[in-house]
Amino acid sequence: MSEQRILVTYLTQAKDLQKKAEAIAVGMTVGSWTDLPAAKQEELKPYLGEAVGSQTLDTLDNGESRGLITVSYPLRNFTKDIPSLLTGIFGKLSMDGKIKLVDVQFPDSFLSAFPGPKYGIAGLRERLGAHGRPLLMSIFKSCLGLPFDDLKTQFRAQALGGVDLVKDDEIFFADDRAPFLERISAFKQIARQTEAETGKPVIYAANLTGPVHELNDRAKRAVEAGADCLLFNVLAFGYDALHRLAADPDVQVPIMAHPALAGAFYPSPDYGIATPLLLGKLMRLAGADLVLFPSPYGNVALNKAEALQLSQHLTEPSGSLRQSFPVPSAGIHPGLVPQLYEDFGLNQVVNAGGGIHGHPGGATAGARAFVAAIDAVVAGRTLEEAAAESAELAAALQKWGAGR
Amino acid sequence: MSEQRILVTYLTQAKDLQKKAEAIAVGMTVGSWTDLPAAKQEELKPYLGEAVGSQTLDTLDNGESRGLITVSYPLRNFTKDIPSLLTGIFGKLSMDGKIKLVDVQFPDSFLSAFPGPKYGIAGLRERLGAHGRPLLMSIFKSCLGLPFDDLKTQFRAQALGGVDLVKDDEIFFADDRAPFLERISAFKQIARQTEAETGKPVIYAANLTGPVHELNDRAKRAVEAGADCLLFNVLAFGYDALHRLAADPDVQVPIMAHPALAGAFYPSPDYGIATPLLLGKLMRLAGADLVLFPSPYGNVALNKAEALQLSQHLTEPSGSLRQSFPVPSAGIHPGLVPQLYEDFGLNQVVNAGGGIHGHPGGATAGARAFVAAIDAVVAGRTLEEAAAESAELAAALQKWGAGR
Repeated sequence: MSEQRILVTYLTQAKDLQKKAEAIAVGMTVGSWTDLPAAKQEELKPYLGEAVGSQTLDTLDNGESRGLITVSYPLRNFTKDIPSLLTGIFGKLSMDGKIKLVDVQFPDSFLSAFPGPKYGIAGLRERLGAHGRPLLMSIFKSCLGLPFDDLKTQFRAQALGGVDLVKDDEIFFADDRAPFLERISAFKQIARQTEAETGKPVIYAANLTGPVHELNDRAKRAVEAGADCLLFNVLAFGYDALHRLAADPDVQVPIMAHPALAGAFYPSPDYGIATPLLLGKLMRLAGADLVLFPSPYGNVALNKAEALQLSQHLTEPSGSLRQSFPVPSAGIHPGLVPQLYEDFGLNQVVNAGGGIHGHPGGATAGARAFVAAIDAVVAGRTLEEAAAESAELAAALQKWGAGR
Repeated sequence: MSEQRILVTYLTQAKDLQKKAEAIAVGMTVGSWTDLPAAKQEELKPYLGEAVGSQTLDTLDNGESRGLITVSYPLRNFTKDIPSLLTGIFGKLSMDGKIKLVDVQFPDSFLSAFPGPKYGIAGLRERLGAHGRPLLMSIFKSCLGLPFDDLKTQFRAQALGGVDLVKDDEIFFADDRAPFLERISAFKQIARQTEAETGKPVIYAANLTGPVHELNDRAKRAVEAGADCLLFNVLAFGYDALHRLAADPDVQVPIMAHPALAGAFYPSPDYGIATPLLLGKLMRLAGADLVLFPSPYGNVALNKAEALQLSQHLTEPSGSLRQSFPVPSAGIHPGLVPQLYEDFGLNQVVNAGGGIHGHPGGATAGARAFVAAIDAVVAGRTLEEAAAESAELAAALQKWGAGR
């Protein structure tokens, strides 16, 4: 691919897909072409989009073709940020009938303008001293309205079980009972205590909120208060807010991207933005060190091929961008760990809420069951073998079963 | 409605819609309920969502009901900003099967925390001295890559025709040939000249771009350079960025919201966010003085009932929020003005691109044709009557016809 062009793939339908690609190539860049005088064409040529190809997937009853089209855009058309990119390749086009933004391929010169993840998989593993295994994260049972002491109790219980990370609820904005900075300090202290007891560090991801133009300052204050990680609702605040946090040398802390609102974009077959791009490529580009996304298991699961593609986008080589940790979420219990390991491999975070808090022995036992399951799969043992040595895992398998 | 609750309506499907509403009311607030001890219930009750009602619209082949459900959320669950709101009412829920966010009703105490439009319809009319008629806006034929002189020529041609506003292309981010602040100064000077010639002021809306946390500073510099209005890609940057611009006392300039990327949210019947909320209520709440949206005419038109509802949300009484100007866009030519007037009334901006630049006599004639059409409908005359006195309107009607 040319170092000077961005390659964009859309899923759409039209009588003639190639003609549609050509119309988009002109309409999304210089506006008109064939009616321009030759001198003007010469002048605007460097800004002109180009129809690269089309591929019919189905022929519809109305005779139209449904398929993929690819358009290339000159790099010079964009400033190097995601609002410019998305507006330029999908802004008004998103309103132009059935069309879904499926993929974007960036030249290295575009990628290198973005900081990407500040820590990435390697940096997070180093911070935690956790190598050669998936990480484990747990979620508060709930946050909203809980007295501070309840949250402290929950945090300690999860940490004692051996989780690597604990994250806030993404809806935790109104936190007057347990304010952001105070929470960070208090949980840091508890984390030090539990590390002294268990020998295992734990990272707390506090939900970063506030006016968008003050987020960097709020993040800096969080770091000063001892924050180890920030949770961030990227789509609610916009990708650029994440980009600017990741690019800020004073915000020395990994950022965990929550997928809240992603379902407003990805599930329609006809409209929106495909998950591997929305929660994969763009999140990594903008600088997420960890990315939560719906797991391909459970009641309302992400399409498996898309979940795997998403995870691949977070971890495959991509310019100089560090890797982001995939965090397939929802419906996770210890019996699923072998499946998770088969699907997402070593470099993932196993993330559970109900699968930890719902354990018959409570959250600490719930976390221990996951730790035993993760140790087992990495060692190539079955969960049943491991359960013989872990009463917590045995109880979890009894409750939730092994496998899906 | 209670002053202390936010009422949210979703379109969804379920075996039992009321039960689904109840599950959402718990799941999106305190997380669990029936299994909580009584003392905990007492403590969390103030944060608990409530299923208000459900209304079946269809029964599906699988026996499920498709319909509207309404859930009320305690105001205390949110900070008073749109990221908190959207994450709290639709964040993870958006990923939970077929569900579309349709409407939100805010108590005045929530509305009053937002600045809303700084100028609104009345303020813009005053700035322009334009009362008792729809306003007229034109769009550059294209911006990207054009030499500065070409843009100046285009600006002058449009202004001479009597338009009230001229706006940048929304894709105009990479503007090294005609940089933002220089453009603002240059067009301001041209606007002074054309006002001296025609007696009519014209407002230029420059596309505000840049890192999200620096937008307020960029906007201030634009105002210092003489900016009269800013165009803003709200969905690409996030509603909160608009909110903070509107709330900034140093950004004394009306803001025009572009709907770029809106099509990633609204067209699916099953997913996303409904247009009247997405481009109506939320844009006004966040502070847009003018809101562009796809017109209900033309090839790829917005559903007419939704377009009218959107427009109503922008203009109906809503706490202390000023009114936003509806700007139905795309496919507009002078022959459509009576239809626009019938549908959207006095308080709208007639917005044309091709319908001005494509006029056989050029952009100035194209603008004059619109001015004549607008004057005619306001005076209760037919376009044919007006065309007898306006050669430009006659030529436009000849080219595009009268009506749709």
